[in-house]
Amino acid sequence: MNTILVVGSVALDTVKTPAGSIADGLGGSATYFSLAARHFAPVRLVGVVGEDFPSEHRTLLSERGIDCAGLKTAKGKTFRWSGRYGKDANTAKTLATHLNVFKDFRPRLDEAQRNSPVVFLANIDPELQSEVLAQMKAPALVACDTMNFWIDSKPEALKELLSKVDVFFANEEEAKRLARKTNPMLAAETISSWGPSVVVIKKGEHGALMKVGNRFYIFPPFPLPEIKDPTGAGDTFAGGFLGSLAAAGVYDDVGHLKRAMAYGSVLASFNVEDFSTRNIENLDRERIDERFHDLLDRMSVPRTQDLPKPRRAVAA
Amino acid sequence: MNTILVVGSVALDTVKTPAGSIADGLGGSATYFSLAARHFAPVRLVGVVGEDFPSEHRTLLSERGIDCAGLKTAKGKTFRWSGRYGKDANTAKTLATHLNVFKDFRPRLDEAQRNSPVVFLANIDPELQSEVLAQMKAPALVACDTMNFWIDSKPEALKELLSKVDVFFANEEEAKRLARKTNPMLAAETISSWGPSVVVIKKGEHGALMKVGNRFYIFPPFPLPEIKDPTGAGDTFAGGFLGSLAAAGVYDDVGHLKRAMAYGSVLASFNVEDFSTRNIENLDRERIDERFHDLLDRMSVPRTQDLPKPRRAVAA
Repeated sequence: MNTILVVGSVALDTVKTPAGSIADGLGGSATYFSLAARHFAPVRLVGVVGEDFPSEHRTLLSERGIDCAGLKTAKGKTFRWSGRYGKDANTAKTLATHLNVFKDFRPRLDEAQRNSPVVFLANIDPELQSEVLAQMKAPALVACDTMNFWIDSKPEALKELLSKVDVFFANEEEAKRLARKTNPMLAAETISSWGPSVVVIKKGEHGALMKVGNRFYIFPPFPLPEIKDPTGAGDTFAGGFLGSLAAAGVYDDVGHLKRAMAYGSVLASFNVEDFSTRNIENLDRERIDERFHDLLDRMSVPRTQDLPKPRRAVAA
Repeated sequence: MNTILVVGSVALDTVKTPAGSIADGLGGSATYFSLAARHFAPVRLVGVVGEDFPSEHRTLLSERGIDCAGLKTAKGKTFRWSGRYGKDANTAKTLATHLNVFKDFRPRLDEAQRNSPVVFLANIDPELQSEVLAQMKAPALVACDTMNFWIDSKPEALKELLSKVDVFFANEEEAKRLARKTNPMLAAETISSWGPSVVVIKKGEHGALMKVGNRFYIFPPFPLPEIKDPTGAGDTFAGGFLGSLAAAGVYDDVGHLKRAMAYGSVLASFNVEDFSTRNIENLDRERIDERFHDLLDRMSVPRTQDLPKPRRAVAA
């Protein structure tokens, strides 16, 4: 199996949405990503937490088969984020960010981590993402994510990173801001000209767009009557996407990339159905595949020859 | 072939969008619908224009095979609408509506019109829609559209109409407003409880949702780098949808309904690429089918067994 290395945040999130709230829930990009990707391939998590990080959270991650050898405990407090979502589930209002131990996060990869064939550089300082990448031996697939904070504060470092990346994930707002375009397709074109052969633009409740080479592919979202907590949707999407690709072991085939998009949507759809990691903690592959096939049925268009003919002629 | 009767407006539209503008361009719900549906099935148009309606517009419709026997000319001026779209292509700001001859529109169907197997009651007063429907003999499929004006002013007449309708088209905003729900799925559930077995909710540049029985199907939009003029997108969508169904002659099969959704998306995508009816005036079935198959390729997810295997084992 093709192991995935993920480098990112492990956090305690305080979140308020129209559906309720949670205080100091397990969160962070590497957490969400790992809990999604582990269903498909072995995952090695590299991150840092403080001395206050509840041991049951570490146990939870380990018990689900995530290699936490790279999850260091540093003196100080765990990274905390708090935010609020209004009716528009696509954008959070950040109420507070306390980097705490995450401020001095300088990951040093061990031999096993450096040899991982797939790496996901979750949303951290792009200079740090490049530093991590420089430590990798010869990854078959390099993917990354980012956020508006880095797009605004370190655009050049981000572009430098993108020149070495195969798959770039962004939400629509971020992609347009980064590329300075008003249309997501034009944004993806600009971004891919900087390096990534695959650009994935997530539109939240409106689905996603993928650019591979010069062609755009489009994906509807799994239909949900309610979104409880959108936190982590992007990272569970990336986890399902890269997990599916790592399991296939084929990284440049449009068909596999399309399946990866569908698995990303499915994992994200489970995640937003409850607060924090509650709903993805106890998923199993059977439920994932059930929804995967359900999604495909809901979005597939059959060929005429497979469909019923009229029962009788109708007069015009 | 199963003829489609469409009853609705034929108008002269003055439209401004970020991409440009047009004055007194050919428009109206029945116009857009007919120009889309005619590629699939014979179309009979019922509407009214004023004495100022340019003869070349009538010629255009007739030359494209649309039966205009039901397009009456009344004393007075043609219905005029003018609107402006901002960056958000999904919602128009109406600048002026002059009903003119449309104010006294009271369609009386002739024998051929009454026998049409498929009828589309485009956006007009729901009481008038019901009056038209009462004149029909035994249509195999009844579909309708509406707008916020009627949702707000005649909700009971609209619900009465819906109890006799098979397919209801609405955009997301209208559906939520009509059903008094904040989520499009919940809105579709409420609306279908009033009658329609098929509810189609259009989300503009974000695709569409279809409820059939108790199940939701989801469709991404055809990806376009620019939308020049969204006017008529909903009616061309309905035209492609009902045209495709009428051609199939099967009205209750999910597979055919899914193909209808895809044809609806394709026709709408052509329409928004230029002002007024410019881009759909000269379409042919070959270009439509080319984009239909292109759309299906962009949104299809292949099965694993059809995909390439890894070329070599990759060390974990």
